[in-house]
Amino acid sequence: MQLIDGKATSIEIKKEIAKEVEQIKASGGKTPHLAAILVGHDGGSETYVANKVKSCEEVGFESTLIRFETDVTEKDLLASVEKLNNDPDIDGFIVQLPLPKHISEDKVTEAIDYRKDVDGFHPVNVGRMSLEMPCFLSATPSGIVELLRRYKIDTKGKHCVILGRSNIVGKPAAMLLMQKAYPGDCTVTVCHSRTENIKEICLQADIIIAALGVPEFLKGDMVKQGAVVIDVGTTRVPSDKTKSGFKLTGDVAFDEVAPKCAYITPVPGGVGPMTIVSLLKNTLLAGKKEVYN
Amino acid sequence: MQLIDGKATSIEIKKEIAKEVEQIKASGGKTPHLAAILVGHDGGSETYVANKVKSCEEVGFESTLIRFETDVTEKDLLASVEKLNNDPDIDGFIVQLPLPKHISEDKVTEAIDYRKDVDGFHPVNVGRMSLEMPCFLSATPSGIVELLRRYKIDTKGKHCVILGRSNIVGKPAAMLLMQKAYPGDCTVTVCHSRTENIKEICLQADIIIAALGVPEFLKGDMVKQGAVVIDVGTTRVPSDKTKSGFKLTGDVAFDEVAPKCAYITPVPGGVGPMTIVSLLKNTLLAGKKEVYN
Repeated sequence: MQLIDGKATSIEIKKEIAKEVEQIKASGGKTPHLAAILVGHDGGSETYVANKVKSCEEVGFESTLIRFETDVTEKDLLASVEKLNNDPDIDGFIVQLPLPKHISEDKVTEAIDYRKDVDGFHPVNVGRMSLEMPCFLSATPSGIVELLRRYKIDTKGKHCVILGRSNIVGKPAAMLLMQKAYPGDCTVTVCHSRTENIKEICLQADIIIAALGVPEFLKGDMVKQGAVVIDVGTTRVPSDKTKSGFKLTGDVAFDEVAPKCAYITPVPGGVGPMTIVSLLKNTLLAGKKEVYN
Repeated sequence: MQLIDGKATSIEIKKEIAKEVEQIKASGGKTPHLAAILVGHDGGSETYVANKVKSCEEVGFESTLIRFETDVTEKDLLASVEKLNNDPDIDGFIVQLPLPKHISEDKVTEAIDYRKDVDGFHPVNVGRMSLEMPCFLSATPSGIVELLRRYKIDTKGKHCVILGRSNIVGKPAAMLLMQKAYPGDCTVTVCHSRTENIKEICLQADIIIAALGVPEFLKGDMVKQGAVVIDVGTTRVPSDKTKSGFKLTGDVAFDEVAPKCAYITPVPGGVGPMTIVSLLKNTLLAGKKEVYN
């Protein structure tokens, strides 16, 4: 069993990005600039956004954090989005989800100029990804694919089973892994809460991407010998053993599953850090105007 | 075994559309107007476009056919698209594919105003479909889903195996059938030319959608008893038994497969007529401005 070290890989890629940013600056180019909008004080969101801002600094980007209280109106939030759309210094930006219930996430996501949508959530980027056209790839699936590439994991003709059909992981991961590309060319199965014989299907998988958000859903008896297991789960489970009072828990029962795997990602330190790296890569592309003009 | 009669179903739906068009006209509303651009004289394309125009007349739409010779420049074709985009009388239009090699299909598809893209091929519609937002559904997958609905075929939790990963059938059909909806909620597997154990996977399927474009690919020994088989193949195979000199052949070896099926679509008269009906439905929605303003 080999551990897929997302943290180490993310550090390696950040160094590559930092080097490119240095060259851009040295040649008088514009420093890439990522902005993030954060609404409210959800613990998870706070952590994610803080990590994103910190990562921007690490690679030499400029970053801007815009905060709103939970009672911000949809209108005010949309106005902030519009301002970022029109700010030529901002190359890309994200609105951290989830948003309070009185604000439409669809409306906010669609309001973002797709040419600055470095999360890859806008319908234009989702559609272009499906059509294999240049776009900002959805950050988490793009991070997964990058891990498969860096670990030189064979994907062509392999059966990839994806657990979960969310718009931000399951569906775009399915699209990426069935494309005529490396990593890709997989036979792809998408399972979800309605799937009847999920264990039987998982046992056929060469690659499993677990993104249901159900802690330790994937057990040892659901995985065949030699499988590659990618754990996207990050549920905060209460714990009296940590200072924060919770423990980040994946969708995979790691201790049972790992011994059977050829490769497996841990939680934390697997997919998580790669999602941020994808965001940085998209922002770099945005800064260089390599996807859209 | 019950035959899924796409032709009869399409006639039924066309009557429903015709009735609605009559009511629109009676109340002084605008008659829906579909335009089609046809480049060259490919036999298949000629037939498809002729059928689309004829269907428009049947339901009371206005229709316009714009023809170009094979040597039309990309620039002139794009100008024609732009003209239709800006023509307030045209509610929706299609550019019949394939196009000659010197013209970029991606560029032409993207040039179409997504609010008039009644084929559902534009990245905005593809993305919105994936995100389960209102959009023009890709015509062939939408026709398939409509057949499942009209025949009251159970899909929830069923394993749907899709053969083929094309942008116009395989991928969008996968997205539709995994959505939280009826028809939908399927466990979805997408197989293609790189799939290693396609027979084994097909044998697990409750529903098979065959869209590889390989005549009679799906044999009797690849289908389990009681399966639902949807044949999207329409390859023109030379034949000395028909006046035209060819025979429209599906991806399913019908005589072998049909006896094992609970439901099966024939070729011709299955999915084909439903694709045109989807186009009419999208045009009606476009005319009523129900998807976009």
